[in-house]
Amino acid sequence: MTGGVYVGDAAVPTTRSDEKALVLCSGGMDSAVCLALAARAGPVETINFNYKQKHQRERGAAAFLSGYYNARLHRVDLPDVFQGAGSTLVDVDKETPSVTYEEIRDTPGISPTYVPYRNGNLLSVAAALALTIKANYVYFGAHAEDARNWAYPDCSPEFIGAMANAIYIGTYHQVRLITPLMWLTKGEVVQLGTVLGVPFGATHSCYRDAYPACGTCPTCVERKKAFEVNGMVDPVPYVS
Amino acid sequence: MTGGVYVGDAAVPTTRSDEKALVLCSGGMDSAVCLALAARAGPVETINFNYKQKHQRERGAAAFLSGYYNARLHRVDLPDVFQGAGSTLVDVDKETPSVTYEEIRDTPGISPTYVPYRNGNLLSVAAALALTIKANYVYFGAHAEDARNWAYPDCSPEFIGAMANAIYIGTYHQVRLITPLMWLTKGEVVQLGTVLGVPFGATHSCYRDAYPACGTCPTCVERKKAFEVNGMVDPVPYVS
Repeated sequence: MTGGVYVGDAAVPTTRSDEKALVLCSGGMDSAVCLALAARAGPVETINFNYKQKHQRERGAAAFLSGYYNARLHRVDLPDVFQGAGSTLVDVDKETPSVTYEEIRDTPGISPTYVPYRNGNLLSVAAALALTIKANYVYFGAHAEDARNWAYPDCSPEFIGAMANAIYIGTYHQVRLITPLMWLTKGEVVQLGTVLGVPFGATHSCYRDAYPACGTCPTCVERKKAFEVNGMVDPVPYVS
Repeated sequence: MTGGVYVGDAAVPTTRSDEKALVLCSGGMDSAVCLALAARAGPVETINFNYKQKHQRERGAAAFLSGYYNARLHRVDLPDVFQGAGSTLVDVDKETPSVTYEEIRDTPGISPTYVPYRNGNLLSVAAALALTIKANYVYFGAHAEDARNWAYPDCSPEFIGAMANAIYIGTYHQVRLITPLMWLTKGEVVQLGTVLGVPFGATHSCYRDAYPACGTCPTCVERKKAFEVNGMVDPVPYVS
């Protein structure tokens, strides 16, 4: 691996022998690469969440990826506390916007695609389940680029650091939060995933839940670009 | 109020005008006092959790207390991730121990009554709901005494501090975590609640879900003592 991409060998456990990791698996690109990294080092189980996101198709991708990496999949329905705050990802009366993340970042205020404290909830359930299944690590594919200019504050290094502390302390030091993609750009995530042989064609990202993918929602735009900067073509088909 | 008891007037918002607070209300003594403090300062809503705790009776107490303080009650069923780790509060094959918290604190290892990362989950759901109902504060009645010698690490100031950061950052600085009982002993919680007129007789604490309360589970023993140190008698009846 070249080009200054952080491959995680310094900090991410590369061998865990029989220590188990619980990997958050949405079915998107980031969590697929995170799962590949975790699976390379030892046994893995996965956790996938239903928070009534409109793009339910990603959950099927999570099931495929879990099977691909021999991970037992835990499906969890979160409580109904995310709807009504105006998020286009969950509120049925809000339409998915055709904007780029650059435009979201450049617009002050809460991102239209932000789901109320979603990542805090995902990580807290994962920490509890980790204790129950005796996993010492929770892997989460967040990266700081997503938090730039307050696009998603619950992807920021500050948020992740606070959660890592809360989880480590609150679990009697039994569970550590590992975020190996934290300092990678989306383009570097594609590069790393390619080296690891991640089946990107089986992942799903489109917020409009379309297949072929819409190509115009924020995550489609960003995803296509991440392959382009690597001189690659996304194996997932697009309408436009 | 005398005797060095921290009454919270310095740090706890004493008037919030129309700013809403969401109060975690288990139905026990601590959350009742916390609710009374929050209600004194402005409008309140409450959140009560079902994590399949055996002492479901406390949930009825939470409903009463919410009505008493004119708070809209949000009932939330948490995902099934807490069973199987050996907690006597949720595992049906584990019996509630007749020990004191002193004995729990003096025994190394995980407390038998610890529920896997429970408080992290409660606070994360509360933070999400706070955004949805436009509450700027989440009140939580944890106190450090419960964390002494690792009895409940998810009541420690370190855990709460980390969660306060995570919530404040992860909600775009919209939600603050307030823990006004943090530095009070259980005896001081009774003293403060008495000043505030908390209807302690309507709260429920017994882990055995008994009424009259068993008097021998860790929380019954601690509760009785908290009244005794104030020269009071707990209005809740006990078997022994």
